[in-house]
Amino acid sequence: MDKGQISPRKPRRKGIHSRASDDDPKGRRREILETAARVICEKSYEGASIQDIAAACGLTKAGLYHHIRSKEHLLLEIMNYGMDVFEEQVLNQVLAISDPLERLKACMEKNILLVTHGWSKEVTIILHEHATLTGEARGQINARKKRYVRFLESSFAEAIRDGQIRPVNPTVAAFAFLGMVLWIYKWFRPDGAIDAQTISREMQDLLFSPLQARPTKTLKRTRLAT
Amino acid sequence: MDKGQISPRKPRRKGIHSRASDDDPKGRRREILETAARVICEKSYEGASIQDIAAACGLTKAGLYHHIRSKEHLLLEIMNYGMDVFEEQVLNQVLAISDPLERLKACMEKNILLVTHGWSKEVTIILHEHATLTGEARGQINARKKRYVRFLESSFAEAIRDGQIRPVNPTVAAFAFLGMVLWIYKWFRPDGAIDAQTISREMQDLLFSPLQARPTKTLKRTRLAT
Repeated sequence: MDKGQISPRKPRRKGIHSRASDDDPKGRRREILETAARVICEKSYEGASIQDIAAACGLTKAGLYHHIRSKEHLLLEIMNYGMDVFEEQVLNQVLAISDPLERLKACMEKNILLVTHGWSKEVTIILHEHATLTGEARGQINARKKRYVRFLESSFAEAIRDGQIRPVNPTVAAFAFLGMVLWIYKWFRPDGAIDAQTISREMQDLLFSPLQARPTKTLKRTRLAT
Repeated sequence: MDKGQISPRKPRRKGIHSRASDDDPKGRRREILETAARVICEKSYEGASIQDIAAACGLTKAGLYHHIRSKEHLLLEIMNYGMDVFEEQVLNQVLAISDPLERLKACMEKNILLVTHGWSKEVTIILHEHATLTGEARGQINARKKRYVRFLESSFAEAIRDGQIRPVNPTVAAFAFLGMVLWIYKWFRPDGAIDAQTISREMQDLLFSPLQARPTKTLKRTRLAT
């Protein structure tokens, strides 16, 4: 597969084994992973014991081991879960948009909604701040993240080729996009003065309106006023 | 002091007591804090013992306690050191620039140079990913960070008032600036294909050229070409 291309894919479900007795194994898995993420963020990965995580999930240690293989594998599971949700709610929603500029704008909006409302903040923290994974597990998560960077780069490059935006470095543009969007979890407050829709509209305007080859209406108005 | 205003200030030197026998107490303090930051990033704050940190610094435990008060205070010291360097190398360098747009551009360039070359990556990680501080210490670091946000907001607002850039939400613009610039430590590689100067030039262009009330040369060229 071309590393610049991302195909829609089914979320991974390996590792956490749902029990036939569970009415909602998907919901139970999510609940365990979200709870584990919260405990790990509170106590740190090293500081949080399997016992702590089991207790927070309302399980015995043996009960938790029914769902997970090991503490390191649990961390991998949380990250894969974060990437699953990201791909479901963001990437797979915009891949089919043929216009690259519209694709990038929709992607920004959906990613901002995910960061502000879709994920728990703890999953975001574990996904972007945790370097505890090693070896193959680390490579697996990095590959999933890299796919997103390649998607953004190739969308920027396509928009430039089509003359929709002026020439910029697609890699720097991709990481500027990511930085603007992902940094939000560090400052956004659900009960704060600025809601997610405003952030989305303003950030789309900051990055894309001015990049477009033709000045936007706002730009025209400002120019007339000066 | 108005929370929107930042005055140049002397870096803090409290807490780590330099010994008269040291030839370069400032350099020794920096060395201890950078080393401690590295050990804490490797082993996590909870996982790193004072003994580990002392050994990495080439000191006995008693020797390290000559420089620090406690492990939590050491973490505060690393963060204050990071903010000292940031204020010396970024903020205090641009405060006197009267043109708000030039001030913001220079600030972006200097902050990018700091993130890519000035700080060790570990200091950045501790400054931006560590939530272990509590109470007064946490408040102290948050206040120093908030001062930077207010400076950016007020500079954007000033540039809008002056008609230099089109109207945007100064808070979202400030956090977009911060996200673009601070996310760099997550992807920049000193030996990578994109150097700091390129990132700086491209990011200034991405965020500021198009925001300016008059289209840049690049924008004109693109428009002629289409």
